[in-house]
Amino acid sequence: MNLNHRAASLCRTLADDAELLRVELHLQDSGAMVVDCGVKATGGLDAGLLLARLCLADLATVSLTPGTNGLGPVAQVQTDHPLLACMASQYAGWEVKGEKFFAMGSGPMRAAAAREPLFEDLKYHEAASHCVGVLESGKLPNDEVCRDVAAKCGVEPSALTLLVAPTRSMAGTLQVVARSVETALHKLHELKFDLHRVVSGWGSAPLPPPAKDDMAAIGRTNDAILYGGHAVLYVRGDDESLREIGARTPSSASKDYGRPFAEIFASYNHDFYQIDPHLFSPAVVTLVNLDTGNSFRFGKFDDAVVAKSFGIV
Amino acid sequence: MNLNHRAASLCRTLADDAELLRVELHLQDSGAMVVDCGVKATGGLDAGLLLARLCLADLATVSLTPGTNGLGPVAQVQTDHPLLACMASQYAGWEVKGEKFFAMGSGPMRAAAAREPLFEDLKYHEAASHCVGVLESGKLPNDEVCRDVAAKCGVEPSALTLLVAPTRSMAGTLQVVARSVETALHKLHELKFDLHRVVSGWGSAPLPPPAKDDMAAIGRTNDAILYGGHAVLYVRGDDESLREIGARTPSSASKDYGRPFAEIFASYNHDFYQIDPHLFSPAVVTLVNLDTGNSFRFGKFDDAVVAKSFGIV
Amino acid sequence: MNLNHRAASLCRTLADDAELLRVELHLQDSGAMVVDCGVKATGGLDAGLLLARLCLADLATVSLTPGTNGLGPVAQVQTDHPLLACMASQYAGWEVKGEKFFAMGSGPMRAAAAREPLFEDLKYHEAASHCVGVLESGKLPNDEVCRDVAAKCGVEPSALTLLVAPTRSMAGTLQVVARSVETALHKLHELKFDLHRVVSGWGSAPLPPPAKDDMAAIGRTNDAILYGGHAVLYVRGDDESLREIGARTPSSASKDYGRPFAEIFASYNHDFYQIDPHLFSPAVVTLVNLDTGNSFRFGKFDDAVVAKSFGIV
Repeated sequence: MNLNHRAASLCRTLADDAELLRVELHLQDSGAMVVDCGVKATGGLDAGLLLARLCLADLATVSLTPGTNGLGPVAQVQTDHPLLACMASQYAGWEVKGEKFFAMGSGPMRAAAAREPLFEDLKYHEAASHCVGVLESGKLPNDEVCRDVAAKCGVEPSALTLLVAPTRSMAGTLQVVARSVETALHKLHELKFDLHRVVSGWGSAPLPPPAKDDMAAIGRTNDAILYGGHAVLYVRGDDESLREIGARTPSSASKDYGRPFAEIFASYNHDFYQIDPHLFSPAVVTLVNLDTGNSFRFGKFDDAVVAKSFGIV
Repeated sequence: MNLNHRAASLCRTLADDAELLRVELHLQDSGAMVVDCGVKATGGLDAGLLLARLCLADLATVSLTPGTNGLGPVAQVQTDHPLLACMASQYAGWEVKGEKFFAMGSGPMRAAAAREPLFEDLKYHEAASHCVGVLESGKLPNDEVCRDVAAKCGVEPSALTLLVAPTRSMAGTLQVVARSVETALHKLHELKFDLHRVVSGWGSAPLPPPAKDDMAAIGRTNDAILYGGHAVLYVRGDDESLREIGARTPSSASKDYGRPFAEIFASYNHDFYQIDPHLFSPAVVTLVNLDTGNSFRFGKFDDAVVAKSFGIV
Repeated sequence: MNLNHRAASLCRTLADDAELLRVELHLQDSGAMVVDCGVKATGGLDAGLLLARLCLADLATVSLTPGTNGLGPVAQVQTDHPLLACMASQYAGWEVKGEKFFAMGSGPMRAAAAREPLFEDLKYHEAASHCVGVLESGKLPNDEVCRDVAAKCGVEPSALTLLVAPTRSMAGTLQVVARSVETALHKLHELKFDLHRVVSGWGSAPLPPPAKDDMAAIGRTNDAILYGGHAVLYVRGDDESLREIGARTPSSASKDYGRPFAEIFASYNHDFYQIDPHLFSPAVVTLVNLDTGNSFRFGKFDDAVVAKSFGIV
């Protein structure tokens, strides 16, 4: 089970499906393929679902379903490989930098580069003949960035596919809110929970209206998870640690919980690092213990904050 | 991207799947293929989903999901090609007539014939080597009707596939209520909104119980959209026109809103043309402006009218 | 349309997908294939969806969607072949026994063996070149059991595939609660309703947290159907029989309705046969009469009992 090869299989029909997905393929001089899913290209909901699946190394089912609050669709995720899909692949842990370029990098390329300390905890690293990454960025990377990423992944640039969408785009918005399970896992990892106890995951979060700019989009996509997201994690082991760590897991366990993310951010004079890092988690986290049969549900939804954040009047 | 060819691809396995879909294939002397999906054939939910996909030229995802009001399933539609899928194809704009035969015609054949004034606004017309149409009718068309439709599409009758289901059938009911996005687009077009501003669409509407006769079925399927339907349209441009036109878009903007369609129809002595044409739109229409990041939600659901119309006691 | 062959087609990629599904294949000396989906193997949600599809002879669509009560996902089923899919295949009517082995057997193998009186009512029996069965059991069957099952199905052991999951496992829990439509059909059959009147079916039931042991899991999966399950059946014929029999169909028509199944069971000193057999039915059963256009909805959901049973605190 090679994460990059699974994602690369999904990319094989990209050239044929470009018109359908409204994405644009840009072959670099190096041979690297850059796929615009929302920078200049229009992209859309299907491009967003594809990005989400690629981020998850095609180890999860992602779909839209009607929400219950009348606000529109909800992004649903289901996976039996939560650590590989969400942590080794989907988590946006790679800051891809270049001259006047910055992107949050996710997708299976991270598992080939395996440069983040997280991979030591996961005990996972893979060699791949073709690598796939997803960049959350308002700009397309130039060939220098592609060459650098390829080198870090240990592949020729011609064996690299990078898909790019700004947070504010339709596709970018969707792929970010397909992170309900990932966000819960990341928070648990921060709280020193042993992620190898997590066997399967299911999650949902409302799809926000794409925002005018990336900053506003970051606010809305965060609020979709923080106030409307649900993650159900199937875990093993003792109940006591679930009770103890679980209570600290949902967003409501943070002192910053209760207002749209943009307001919180402004209240800290737009200094991201003053925000409580423990804020970033789904509104509701349900831990289902397969060993004891006991379930623990923490947190609460706040539809009013979601509606306010989404600006639906 | 040829709409008819996309639909024709979906039809290629019809002969093999006929038993599964409970549809009946009738090859005409002319070579035209008529597929009975609910006139004498039983059809069903899968035949309805197929009809819906064909109507949308396979440019949309259509699925059933549980509703929130306990009444049963909801038909969900999602498309990144709303104009082609819904207006150039799904809209039932072709009155197919013959001796003792009448049907509302939809599907990609309309884009090959392109006889409706709407196609001038859409600036779309296609030549196709094979054409596919969906007829909402209580009778199967005879070969004369097939020849006439083929001629208008510019193909030999042997290159025409017509699928037929009455409104009252399971398949017909489902394909009609898969029109939440289309109905919103059509209403906006009536209100002189430039449809080229619409980038993507998502919608849902409850699936009514099939009615005893087509007249009653028209009532229920209309009510599913008018009182239970939601369309989220992703658009470009200014906000002011969204506020102004949007407020007039949902069904509740009509003076006839508030009672089951059958009652409204009866109150006008069954004269269809006395009904306010602006009634025909989803209960809730959400316009998401991708350029400004602002969203506008208009209208309201009325579960009580839906339940009354569906006759669920 | 051969039920076993449809299921066997789904099994063809099992060896390739074993790692993905976290199932383990055990080839017996006789050539029979036993697939562990949750006894020692981990299995998961995807294995559960596969088991459900196999049980239904791949004549139904099975999916997870978000529930409306915040408890997590819901298992949705849709079929245009309710008798074949649910009664001739999915119903767990075969008690598979061996030395220190017991399993509830379901899946299309039942239609090949056709040993149950039910098959006389269904007037269905099939010969198959390959048979597939699903065993709800905490143990894997040995080769003797496989040989016996194969003989009863009229095939060589090498033409038999048996998939096994305990009720308490993730996969087992999911496949059991994908029985909302089947449970309603079975209850109607008990009430002497002519099942050939049922044309199509749709259903949903909340997915319980897997329990610690099979006894507790039987309680939760029952409660998911009894207090949270909905079946919509599309039927033909007169309304009077629907009113009369329908009123007796949902679980709430039973005197034992109102408490978690485990409590009911305990109150009868764990004597299964003292429980009212008419308890086993979905919370809500909606009968849609295609001939008269009238719908009848019986029963009620009880979210509180579901939450209590699931132990979600």
